[in-house]
Amino acid sequence: MSTSTSSPFLAACRRQPSTHTPVWIMRQAGRYLPEYREVREKVDFLTLTKTPELAAEVTLQPIRRFGMDAAILFSDIMTPLEGMGVDLEFAPGPVIARPIRNAAAVTALRPFEAEESVPFVLEAIRILRHELPTSAPLIGFAGAPFTLFCYVVEGGGSKTFSTAKAFLFGDSAAAVSLLEKLADMTAAYLRAQAEAGAQALMLFDSWAGLLGPLDYRRFALPVVTRVLDRLGTVDRPIIYFPNQGATLLADVTTLAVDVVGIDWRTPLSVARATLGSAKAIQGNLDPAALFAPAAELERRIDRVLEEAGPAPGHIFNLGHGIERTTDPDQVARLVDHVHERTAVGGAA
Amino acid sequence: MSTSTSSPFLAACRRQPSTHTPVWIMRQAGRYLPEYREVREKVDFLTLTKTPELAAEVTLQPIRRFGMDAAILFSDIMTPLEGMGVDLEFAPGPVIARPIRNAAAVTALRPFEAEESVPFVLEAIRILRHELPTSAPLIGFAGAPFTLFCYVVEGGGSKTFSTAKAFLFGDSAAAVSLLEKLADMTAAYLRAQAEAGAQALMLFDSWAGLLGPLDYRRFALPVVTRVLDRLGTVDRPIIYFPNQGATLLADVTTLAVDVVGIDWRTPLSVARATLGSAKAIQGNLDPAALFAPAAELERRIDRVLEEAGPAPGHIFNLGHGIERTTDPDQVARLVDHVHERTAVGGAA
Repeated sequence: MSTSTSSPFLAACRRQPSTHTPVWIMRQAGRYLPEYREVREKVDFLTLTKTPELAAEVTLQPIRRFGMDAAILFSDIMTPLEGMGVDLEFAPGPVIARPIRNAAAVTALRPFEAEESVPFVLEAIRILRHELPTSAPLIGFAGAPFTLFCYVVEGGGSKTFSTAKAFLFGDSAAAVSLLEKLADMTAAYLRAQAEAGAQALMLFDSWAGLLGPLDYRRFALPVVTRVLDRLGTVDRPIIYFPNQGATLLADVTTLAVDVVGIDWRTPLSVARATLGSAKAIQGNLDPAALFAPAAELERRIDRVLEEAGPAPGHIFNLGHGIERTTDPDQVARLVDHVHERTAVGGAA
Repeated sequence: MSTSTSSPFLAACRRQPSTHTPVWIMRQAGRYLPEYREVREKVDFLTLTKTPELAAEVTLQPIRRFGMDAAILFSDIMTPLEGMGVDLEFAPGPVIARPIRNAAAVTALRPFEAEESVPFVLEAIRILRHELPTSAPLIGFAGAPFTLFCYVVEGGGSKTFSTAKAFLFGDSAAAVSLLEKLADMTAAYLRAQAEAGAQALMLFDSWAGLLGPLDYRRFALPVVTRVLDRLGTVDRPIIYFPNQGATLLADVTTLAVDVVGIDWRTPLSVARATLGSAKAIQGNLDPAALFAPAAELERRIDRVLEEAGPAPGHIFNLGHGIERTTDPDQVARLVDHVHERTAVGGAA
């Protein structure tokens, strides 16, 4: 399968110039949108992720309303874990009643088969490829192995994931075996999404920042490499987001990914300097900037654009997921301002 | 009042050589200790912080058991807020029923008088100065203004403190007024602790890492400077801990503090290079290292010592508070290993 690079988003992924800086927003399909809340009044979160027509509908909502330059599949990084035999509920955050905390539990995990375990995800992608405009390519995604590891060991969300880190440091052999199984699942999952039609692939390493550089290099980085190796040639740009990864970027440079997502703590000029010219960058407006008055929001957007510099290869985004209390009109302002400010031949 | 610099801890604060690298542990008086849990079976957390004899007792517990090189007053960064008229409960985390979210609420705050509001803290310090060995100077502490701001606006703990940041960015004038009032309280509180006998003062900026460098420079840094200015000459070393502050350290260099605490994400060699030779450093073992097997724990301790380098001015500590599930024997191993490994004239 081939992907078009006529879209500003796909062009930026490949560090090619385009008509404007593309923009999309992490969690753009979500609770800050009244039309999303309307859907959620009828079905719970898990049902929504498992019903292709509804998942496609909420994926399309922000594209219709704001005209973003990319769509991201509505799903959850935890979704494929059930296919490995992990029991999973949302209450409303992820809850794993039987967390994986020893070698025997790691051994008992099942190999993952995408068509069997997540047919609803692949069907949602096929629907979306029919319904999305060519101006908004579809991003498929998965959690990076270390981030999934944090959840399946801890048994749910946490501020410090101390149980997960205790397992990682206390029984490193079993932990690495779990990380590798998660990497193999993730590669198969991303490949299936690409084959179903996803035009770019994103790996969310939401908890990378729990590790110092040495432990990141020892435990998290090798299994991202393993995902990329097993994924092989898919001819799709790959975005890697090491959240809170300010001190990890030098290591991230070694990864064969096209785009690196940057949270709002690292100025994009610093990220560019560290990552070099071979990677595009994505980010990094502080999500709280959307609560600022309009003029201040626009100043903050301009600062991000300035930090990114004039070279191609910048995808505008927030530095983290949008907050549910955000005013949708501020999102419209953001998308329009990025487009106007960066339009080639437009007013500077 | 004068402070001795004969202790390894006080020497290291002043970047002077001493007999060994001093070590203490954030939250060293706490739930991982059976003798602490025994006290807590009888009284709740708030009662414990407000009863000088009991606060002194739990402060002493880790010194007796492990022989750390410094004691830190058992208290909570939220404690002085009641003296400004903030209602405060612990359930078990801090809960503020009426959070401060507009200019009127900021104006309504009362000026803080330490002797009137926190006599129990000052009495605990006086007791401790009688009971502590001279080898373990007493550290007094307070929350830094931005960190206190996060709690009093959000109304309690949070992963993202999005309400606090929305107030900061949405009504910056009122937010800055609140930050300044918190700074004035903090200066008065620290001064009172020094006058009662605290031999060093620590400012915990636990949520500094919620801000990118520009916002840190605009909102958080000026009110730390304000605390230091109002505190004036107290002849006590001052430790500032900007948690998750990897991208803020260049700005932290401008602060007139003696020691900077470093979380485990930034290697100490990098911190030293950024902060220059005019500041001592404190940290930065990952608290999860205490879950590693003994030999691996010792390797990790050695790595921190190596990163800190041979120059004086390193206080060994964790990069964050100790986890409550930590085995106390691992803490004993840590303290002994740091002492043995760094003893002047001892085996290398």
